[in-house]
Amino acid sequence: MDSRTEIATGAGTVIGVFDSGFGGLTVLKALLRRMPGARYVFLGDTARLPYGSKSQRTIARYAAESAQFLVNQQGAEFLVIACNTASALALDAIKEAVTVPVLGVIEPGAAAAAQNSKTKDVLVIATEATVASHAYAAACRAQGLRGVEKACPLLVPLVEEGWTQHPVTAEVVRIYLSELLAEAAAARQNPDTLVLGCTHYPLLRAIMEHEILDLAGPNVVRIIDSAEATAEEASQLVQSLEPNGVRETIKTPDLPQIRCFATDSVEKFARLGSRFLGLPVGKVQLVDLGG
Amino acid sequence: MDSRTEIATGAGTVIGVFDSGFGGLTVLKALLRRMPGARYVFLGDTARLPYGSKSQRTIARYAAESAQFLVNQQGAEFLVIACNTASALALDAIKEAVTVPVLGVIEPGAAAAAQNSKTKDVLVIATEATVASHAYAAACRAQGLRGVEKACPLLVPLVEEGWTQHPVTAEVVRIYLSELLAEAAAARQNPDTLVLGCTHYPLLRAIMEHEILDLAGPNVVRIIDSAEATAEEASQLVQSLEPNGVRETIKTPDLPQIRCFATDSVEKFARLGSRFLGLPVGKVQLVDLGG
Repeated sequence: MDSRTEIATGAGTVIGVFDSGFGGLTVLKALLRRMPGARYVFLGDTARLPYGSKSQRTIARYAAESAQFLVNQQGAEFLVIACNTASALALDAIKEAVTVPVLGVIEPGAAAAAQNSKTKDVLVIATEATVASHAYAAACRAQGLRGVEKACPLLVPLVEEGWTQHPVTAEVVRIYLSELLAEAAAARQNPDTLVLGCTHYPLLRAIMEHEILDLAGPNVVRIIDSAEATAEEASQLVQSLEPNGVRETIKTPDLPQIRCFATDSVEKFARLGSRFLGLPVGKVQLVDLGG
Repeated sequence: MDSRTEIATGAGTVIGVFDSGFGGLTVLKALLRRMPGARYVFLGDTARLPYGSKSQRTIARYAAESAQFLVNQQGAEFLVIACNTASALALDAIKEAVTVPVLGVIEPGAAAAAQNSKTKDVLVIATEATVASHAYAAACRAQGLRGVEKACPLLVPLVEEGWTQHPVTAEVVRIYLSELLAEAAAARQNPDTLVLGCTHYPLLRAIMEHEILDLAGPNVVRIIDSAEATAEEASQLVQSLEPNGVRETIKTPDLPQIRCFATDSVEKFARLGSRFLGLPVGKVQLVDLGG
């Protein structure tokens, strides 16, 4: 067997990945590691971001339109909603809008937390809209966990400013995590797991690990990245969709097969996106979804 | 003459005030002080904010639609674009879209800087899109000033988090202002004026004054609030529009006459808006502009 030929999960499958911005590229990065032979179409609805501060009605409409673009116009056979806010508030609307399987980031994040947690008490940090929806709390309950959630609206702008190693960011993370730990303590909980419920947060993982180690004292709090958990579940789902366990034999391409679309600011997408993907995102195509 | 009866500029005039969010309420606050008898209709295009990170094409379309709503549906006789980004990128598009006089915030801010500055070197802080447009630099040049601009993308989220007195905000302001002063020094400029080129920034005025005093050393740098400068010019313009210098005699209402509209998140608007207006904003009506 040629070294470039392999039997790979998802090889040739068109996987649509959707986010309100480019944070979802952290999910695409995790998908690429598991399914390097798949073909990816990524849409960032940058003209209408951030979803995190908008209402459920508006988010559902935007997300459904975006999903239809990926499926109907770009041929996606499987959709990953790489946006916590859209997963929290619009997963049902998206599933109604398209005919292919759809996976959000909330349930995989909660499932991974359940696998990790011994105390069954978990902490969740996310955007305002995700927290207001209490989607993580519900997903945690479904897994037999108790979850305390906190909105951290400054973290996305800090990541986008490029301050991922900055002392100001460490201080902000410290403030948010202290408040969250105090809330958990007040609820007599003993958390051992922290779920990163926003696709921007993996870029702050080093700071998070340092601060939580410092704050949680003798407790060991492990960090769960919803992006990784989602990619793992996506890979299993795509495998199960392949006919009768017979997988395609296909040459893994030399370069990842990624086409990126954005509804606005393609330059900003290209500039910041590479930081999230860990690879150049290539040419970003502008698409008009109306609105 | 009854104490409640007065000859007031703008009394009875319907003044439309537009912003992408609710930051423009700082402009409305300044307008109210000068024209308490006018009737105000305020529109915050909250479904599509922030404009600050979007492209010129998109911003122009959003702003023109919003201006048409205020004029055609709410009867505004005069429009104040209380959004630096829309003023920088969409003023011409708005003037083409409506038939009433339109005033943005950039020119009044630059004119007030020119009145204040002795060295003719000024500093401007604003959002990414406002700075990328170089609208302030151009307006400064037209006033015989040299302007150095800096985008400060973390300040809006810090204000919206309510951290207007917070040490983290002071540190962020200090970092931005130091970098800006270093740039001005590198360009051999000697600035004595700082223009707040975003409607959120007046809420950070106390921190700005403290930090600039500390950083600028022997130089006295005075802070110009574009909101105040714009309200002053609006008041003069409205006066000049009144027929033949004969002003209406009208009872100043006991309460300010303000109707607020938002395209999304009316609860968030009502909650945060009062902080910017310095008054309760009352009931906020939801309006759908499409998109």
